[in-house]
Amino acid sequence: MSELREECGVVGVFSPRETYEIGRTVYYGLYSLQHRGQESCGIVVNDDGVFASHKDLGLVNDVFNNSTLDELGVGSLAVGHVRYGTTGKNERANAQPIVVNHIKGSMAVAHNGNIVNSGDLRRELELEGSIFQTTSDTEVIAYLITKERLRTDCIENAINAAMHRLKGAYSLCVMSPNKLIAVRDDRGFRPLCYGLTEDGRYVVASESCALDAVGAKFVRDIEPGEIVIFNHDGIRSIKDHCNKNPKSICIFEYIYFARPDSKIDGISVHRARVEAGRALAIDYPVDADIVIGVPDSGLDAAVGYARESGIPYGMGFVKNKYIGRTFIAPGQAQREKLVNIKLNVIEETVRGKRVVMIDDSIVRGTTSRNIVEKLRHAGAKEVHLMLTAPPFVDECYYGTDVSDKSQLIAANHTVDEICTLIGCDSIGFLKMERLHEMIGTAPNVGYCDACFGGEYPAGRATTGKFKFETKLSESKKKEN
Amino acid sequence: MSELREECGVVGVFSPRETYEIGRTVYYGLYSLQHRGQESCGIVVNDDGVFASHKDLGLVNDVFNNSTLDELGVGSLAVGHVRYGTTGKNERANAQPIVVNHIKGSMAVAHNGNIVNSGDLRRELELEGSIFQTTSDTEVIAYLITKERLRTDCIENAINAAMHRLKGAYSLCVMSPNKLIAVRDDRGFRPLCYGLTEDGRYVVASESCALDAVGAKFVRDIEPGEIVIFNHDGIRSIKDHCNKNPKSICIFEYIYFARPDSKIDGISVHRARVEAGRALAIDYPVDADIVIGVPDSGLDAAVGYARESGIPYGMGFVKNKYIGRTFIAPGQAQREKLVNIKLNVIEETVRGKRVVMIDDSIVRGTTSRNIVEKLRHAGAKEVHLMLTAPPFVDECYYGTDVSDKSQLIAANHTVDEICTLIGCDSIGFLKMERLHEMIGTAPNVGYCDACFGGEYPAGRATTGKFKFETKLSESKKKEN
Amino acid sequence: MSELREECGVVGVFSPRETYEIGRTVYYGLYSLQHRGQESCGIVVNDDGVFASHKDLGLVNDVFNNSTLDELGVGSLAVGHVRYGTTGKNERANAQPIVVNHIKGSMAVAHNGNIVNSGDLRRELELEGSIFQTTSDTEVIAYLITKERLRTDCIENAINAAMHRLKGAYSLCVMSPNKLIAVRDDRGFRPLCYGLTEDGRYVVASESCALDAVGAKFVRDIEPGEIVIFNHDGIRSIKDHCNKNPKSICIFEYIYFARPDSKIDGISVHRARVEAGRALAIDYPVDADIVIGVPDSGLDAAVGYARESGIPYGMGFVKNKYIGRTFIAPGQAQREKLVNIKLNVIEETVRGKRVVMIDDSIVRGTTSRNIVEKLRHAGAKEVHLMLTAPPFVDECYYGTDVSDKSQLIAANHTVDEICTLIGCDSIGFLKMERLHEMIGTAPNVGYCDACFGGEYPAGRATTGKFKFETKLSESKKKEN
Amino acid sequence: MSELREECGVVGVFSPRETYEIGRTVYYGLYSLQHRGQESCGIVVNDDGVFASHKDLGLVNDVFNNSTLDELGVGSLAVGHVRYGTTGKNERANAQPIVVNHIKGSMAVAHNGNIVNSGDLRRELELEGSIFQTTSDTEVIAYLITKERLRTDCIENAINAAMHRLKGAYSLCVMSPNKLIAVRDDRGFRPLCYGLTEDGRYVVASESCALDAVGAKFVRDIEPGEIVIFNHDGIRSIKDHCNKNPKSICIFEYIYFARPDSKIDGISVHRARVEAGRALAIDYPVDADIVIGVPDSGLDAAVGYARESGIPYGMGFVKNKYIGRTFIAPGQAQREKLVNIKLNVIEETVRGKRVVMIDDSIVRGTTSRNIVEKLRHAGAKEVHLMLTAPPFVDECYYGTDVSDKSQLIAANHTVDEICTLIGCDSIGFLKMERLHEMIGTAPNVGYCDACFGGEYPAGRATTGKFKFETKLSESKKKEN
Repeated sequence: MSELREECGVVGVFSPRETYEIGRTVYYGLYSLQHRGQESCGIVVNDDGVFASHKDLGLVNDVFNNSTLDELGVGSLAVGHVRYGTTGKNERANAQPIVVNHIKGSMAVAHNGNIVNSGDLRRELELEGSIFQTTSDTEVIAYLITKERLRTDCIENAINAAMHRLKGAYSLCVMSPNKLIAVRDDRGFRPLCYGLTEDGRYVVASESCALDAVGAKFVRDIEPGEIVIFNHDGIRSIKDHCNKNPKSICIFEYIYFARPDSKIDGISVHRARVEAGRALAIDYPVDADIVIGVPDSGLDAAVGYARESGIPYGMGFVKNKYIGRTFIAPGQAQREKLVNIKLNVIEETVRGKRVVMIDDSIVRGTTSRNIVEKLRHAGAKEVHLMLTAPPFVDECYYGTDVSDKSQLIAANHTVDEICTLIGCDSIGFLKMERLHEMIGTAPNVGYCDACFGGEYPAGRATTGKFKFETKLSESKKKEN
Repeated sequence: MSELREECGVVGVFSPRETYEIGRTVYYGLYSLQHRGQESCGIVVNDDGVFASHKDLGLVNDVFNNSTLDELGVGSLAVGHVRYGTTGKNERANAQPIVVNHIKGSMAVAHNGNIVNSGDLRRELELEGSIFQTTSDTEVIAYLITKERLRTDCIENAINAAMHRLKGAYSLCVMSPNKLIAVRDDRGFRPLCYGLTEDGRYVVASESCALDAVGAKFVRDIEPGEIVIFNHDGIRSIKDHCNKNPKSICIFEYIYFARPDSKIDGISVHRARVEAGRALAIDYPVDADIVIGVPDSGLDAAVGYARESGIPYGMGFVKNKYIGRTFIAPGQAQREKLVNIKLNVIEETVRGKRVVMIDDSIVRGTTSRNIVEKLRHAGAKEVHLMLTAPPFVDECYYGTDVSDKSQLIAANHTVDEICTLIGCDSIGFLKMERLHEMIGTAPNVGYCDACFGGEYPAGRATTGKFKFETKLSESKKKEN
Repeated sequence: MSELREECGVVGVFSPRETYEIGRTVYYGLYSLQHRGQESCGIVVNDDGVFASHKDLGLVNDVFNNSTLDELGVGSLAVGHVRYGTTGKNERANAQPIVVNHIKGSMAVAHNGNIVNSGDLRRELELEGSIFQTTSDTEVIAYLITKERLRTDCIENAINAAMHRLKGAYSLCVMSPNKLIAVRDDRGFRPLCYGLTEDGRYVVASESCALDAVGAKFVRDIEPGEIVIFNHDGIRSIKDHCNKNPKSICIFEYIYFARPDSKIDGISVHRARVEAGRALAIDYPVDADIVIGVPDSGLDAAVGYARESGIPYGMGFVKNKYIGRTFIAPGQAQREKLVNIKLNVIEETVRGKRVVMIDDSIVRGTTSRNIVEKLRHAGAKEVHLMLTAPPFVDECYYGTDVSDKSQLIAANHTVDEICTLIGCDSIGFLKMERLHEMIGTAPNVGYCDACFGGEYPAGRATTGKFKFETKLSESKKKEN
Repeated sequence: MSELREECGVVGVFSPRETYEIGRTVYYGLYSLQHRGQESCGIVVNDDGVFASHKDLGLVNDVFNNSTLDELGVGSLAVGHVRYGTTGKNERANAQPIVVNHIKGSMAVAHNGNIVNSGDLRRELELEGSIFQTTSDTEVIAYLITKERLRTDCIENAINAAMHRLKGAYSLCVMSPNKLIAVRDDRGFRPLCYGLTEDGRYVVASESCALDAVGAKFVRDIEPGEIVIFNHDGIRSIKDHCNKNPKSICIFEYIYFARPDSKIDGISVHRARVEAGRALAIDYPVDADIVIGVPDSGLDAAVGYARESGIPYGMGFVKNKYIGRTFIAPGQAQREKLVNIKLNVIEETVRGKRVVMIDDSIVRGTTSRNIVEKLRHAGAKEVHLMLTAPPFVDECYYGTDVSDKSQLIAANHTVDEICTLIGCDSIGFLKMERLHEMIGTAPNVGYCDACFGGEYPAGRATTGKFKFETKLSESKKKEN
């Protein structure tokens, strides 16, 4: 029920044989990554250098049907994308993958992340005469690769060169006329992994759950800074950018974004959440009757809290699973009823009980206040709210929509004030020092906690990330 | 993940004042009953005797948008319906509510259930010159009411008279030019209840979760055999058909169909499932490491099993929540992967563990076999399958699609054979004698367990219920 | 550009062999009858007694695509319908053909016309307990046939009996489990004919242009009062109702409704219009430079006027052929520009000229005034308006939407007043005594000219034809 | 009924005041230019430098509805485009106008024509690192303007500079943050004109019929080579490229592409066609009974032939006006019936007659042969086919799809052979020397007749124009 949204999910497939199934393989992969982006999606199929693409606003199973998949035709390479879109307008033009044609053939790029210096790069490219048809930073990436491509002998070397210019978060699936290339930025902000099917198809995906969906066996994560090339010659890796910077995987991937059945950089997301629940139970012991989780991301942590505390685990809510993109939200007058429609309390579980409720985080606090109120309305005697994340106190520039500090309740209120505003009996945020426990103590395990008040590993965005478009136009519309 | 489907859900609203919101109130109610029928849906709004309707194949949030709701206009009465359709073809013509016009004004009927003597009634009506435009038994109900209406002074008395002719399961929302009427068959096979909003609107619904969704406070269940009339004069009840027969609520409403946040006839569905889990733990104790539930209906019972047995509760699966009506199912060649797409195992939870898995029931056994296989593939050492229902051994004629005995694994195999076929280490079905424990021991608590080998409280259908249409045509097409 | 609309067009096909093409044959037939109804359309295919249907609001090529046609499946019988709908609301429920199921099997009815005593018949049927699911009089026809079917040995005899009860205009395609039956009311208000393809399929259609479209050779018109049965035994005709009343073909079929390439009752529509133009030239000689027709129905008559008068024929207008059902009409502020969008003057033709402009008729006069103004704006020195119909002075009850006398300019103004209101230099209406010249002097050639002040051959409608629905509800909503 | 298609139509509007109507003004303009392109369309509205766009495959009234127009919002500038697309695939990505963002603000480009050196220019740009997201030459134009924009002080000067590089046919509507700019290539292959509404809005359009549609008064044609700038300072013209080359308006605009109510470069299209008919009557006198035109482009010329020859003009055909993009074409087995569906003969007009039939041109000859056969089937004694164009013997590189010489009947057969192949009694092509008579003898009246065997004023395309895409990929896919 968090109001937070991830930017994107990517999928890429290389098949040693041309097949009509390749578009459907990407479809099922995207479908299992739908939680990473619900605004638009797209698939590009590569038939021996000729690219066929279909993309549109909507969920994967709205945008694609048998007819649109059939039209994508046969191919041995394909990439796909689901998008939420934290930068750039929610327009069809911004749907990915982006396909560009240049002197060396076509290229498709699917991107998850956010380039912090895209404003500077864009300005620089524009001064050389480049034109941009979208407001997405993915077009900037495509340009940089293309520029380098003129100076290099192959696309992977062009990518390698372009990475020197790109700052920020990027996990990419790049498709050239005959290669599939997986790229992850040198700090590894966003996840990326690959697997192999029994019949020899390589599948690259943002999360391992997409490999499960298409029947591919997980092979390994792409390393931060690594470029992995899949083609008829097999797999090849370029590691020039590896191990130059400490790893900075977004800790919120574990807390909220990723699916619990995914493993990211060797750590089960489900396990990370259970551990967060345990940590909360240790740090915030409560005399209560039942532990419930707010679906879906609070459920795993509730199990952890219950196990650690010995308080029984219960089912507190039913979430309506039929919510679709076309759902008609209640008008202002009916707004307060929205929680009941999407999420209803199981009164049986909470009536007369002292309840520990686990959720992932608090952004503005509105949703949490509503849920707490519903629990009390259903008869809960006490409500203790436990969050599997520290308080949000700063913006994220690496591919999520944690933005606008003025909207963040924790950036403007003390924990006690938040407890009062939310209306709960007590409140517990996961402590910063517990974050590393979620993902284990292996060497080379670093994470980004900038939005919780930590360091910004790749700096802040150089131009206003949010409302980028408006600012752009305001600065320029007078010029001509 | 059961392959079973409920027939329908109904909603009705009476507002003391005309309002443009009435269509949206029904919309939110239907949306929360979507689990009761995903094939088609419809809403009829009554503006002072003039009925405006919209119905179509599809989910509630596909069929309705702001424009279609606006076109329904203002009104003080409205009824709605979601349908799966166990009888009659899945055609737009069979979508409900049915609107009929006759000498006393228009009438809309929304029906959940199945009339076992509809074949006889239909033949009788046809011999009097009646014509049928659908293959649904709801049209038979509408005819009977209309016929009686000619002999009676008001619609409620006509309904009362018609009920003498109707055999089987029916929970109805009937709308006349100025009344909303809730009707439940005299054995109460299907649930029906009503509530009241703060601003004085009465809401009738199949399940109490729909009352929560529209902000209505639950008042009470409609009694088996009761007719409740809502209009400007208030509420009135006719109980001529009450207490003539023992109650026969479908026990499978508790096991699977209803939402766990609903209460049916005074019993929380969630509680009933938790109790079923407890009973399984008592009857089938297992030496295991983790208890998991198959989403969604097995989760509540898993909590009950875990509590009773002391074995830890775990999250075993992630269910893809974006599955829509337009989802492209994999072709035959990819069929075995379907389970991974809809439902994926959380490997972290089960690897190296002895697993107790709770599901609601087994129909053909295919799905269960696949799930067990996935658990083993993910590293489960043992899988013990516990079902919150006894084995299906016979057909249902009261509004579900448990049909065709030849397809029912339990009608053709012993429990041991089933265990082998499914591939689990042990299997436990809820015992028949435990069913009554699910719903308590209050007086007047009876239930229908015909499909588990119990009695058929209202007899079997007199004409072939399934493939009704084909048989009809086969017998008739030669006649003319 | 007339604001008048026909009610409907019908098509029926009997093929001696089952074929997947049968739905497409009806599709092409309906497509060529699209001018007879643009609101909704439908096709029903009969596969050995099992009826598959698809109908919806929209044009033929919006409602049907390869997928919907494929779903209709194989069959040896099919009927189709295009509808404008002068009676009953423009709702999907009112789309035809109507399919009803009764004791003797299914029946589909497609109807062009209007039953004047449908109000009485409906009330009578309702008093016997009949229910109506549409507001269309076609349902009344279906009921009457069904009632008689119980007393007769075959459907054609049931139709024959029902015709004694039906008053008004009806050309029907009726489909039983194994027969296609064409029926025309005993005065022949609406056209109906049949043809035969080379491979032995019989095709019934409202106009002969539909036979051309599907490659069928015209055989003959159905006679007024005739019932023609097509089945595996060949063709059979029942003529009990023939020659009981004088023929009353709607003269406006020739003037406006029908396509000029159709022949109706032996007379070419194109020829009838040319003759009307000639008659106008004789009765209203004008000293002019050019004769132009308002597309499309005025073009043929303009050729006749030009030939008779010796004044050159010219192309005066371009009509936008891409107008679709979804065209966005200009708002009130832009309304005056609407004529330019749909119809633009060819300035080259009229600048500096004295223009004779031929149109079919004047209803409210608004359109004519706009067109005359456009001609003057384009430089026409004089505009003489010639109409191929006498003035509309009364309502039509036989299947067109000439209604509401208060809206008819000619019912409320003299010819001189009309000339002034329209803004033309002179105006000439076809004289009543010329009407018969349009369709020749063969014996048994009668026509209906009621809307021009003639007799009503079948009387006026017994209940308010227009706004039937509202009246119905007003009289009834208080009853219950 | 010609199989030829125009590439595109463009519309641009500058309003001195911001208005919500601006999108609708473009909509009506595009709607009246629909004959110039039916594959895709788009509108871009400029609200003070922020561009909102909507474009898609489909007809104007399918792609746009009130909701999509509302979303375009308010603005003082807007451009629109309808496309057939002779170059580049029929993909949504190729829909226009193209919107690009660069350092000087956004720019939208709508293009009618074809750049013959686009292959060279594209290669040159790609070597500088440019990327292309479409296969349309319009993107090349946008790049060239952008590159020049970096070196110039305003967009109009950038366009002026870019025109030195562009060879071929282009009529453009360019929109910058605060200017609307109309551009026509220096030979004026494609038409372009502008008008003014009473409330001060300037409207640029491919044809004057679009000005009529939106209520703008025609002001003048854009001169070949001219750049006209519309903004708050009024109108300004740059004529550096004017009068450097002889004018080469596509003569086929008059013969077929343009609407007869349009005037192009001072000449009425209707008049040009009438004159062509007259010329045919002089050069090919026939002893016949009736002159008919093939709709729509043959009708005007038939009037001219009839006037000159004294043979009566008649209506020979009815064209189905409801043909839409979604019309289901008959399968191979039914192909021969297609002519009857789209176009039916009025038998009354031709039976027993010697017929002169006027059409615009013959491409492959298939359609003409079908039509002649239909006339004979309907009873025509003789059929004399007159074409208002000389024989097509060569390809067009300037924005039409006259391509592939191997398909052109006249490039491979003598006139006598064509007459035999078509099956007519005689055949007459407009003589090359008559072409100039169609458009008058004013000074500076030149035209392009390259496809009829004349000179190619701007040379042939330097890369294969047709199947451009495939060749591109073939040459490149091996490179990487």
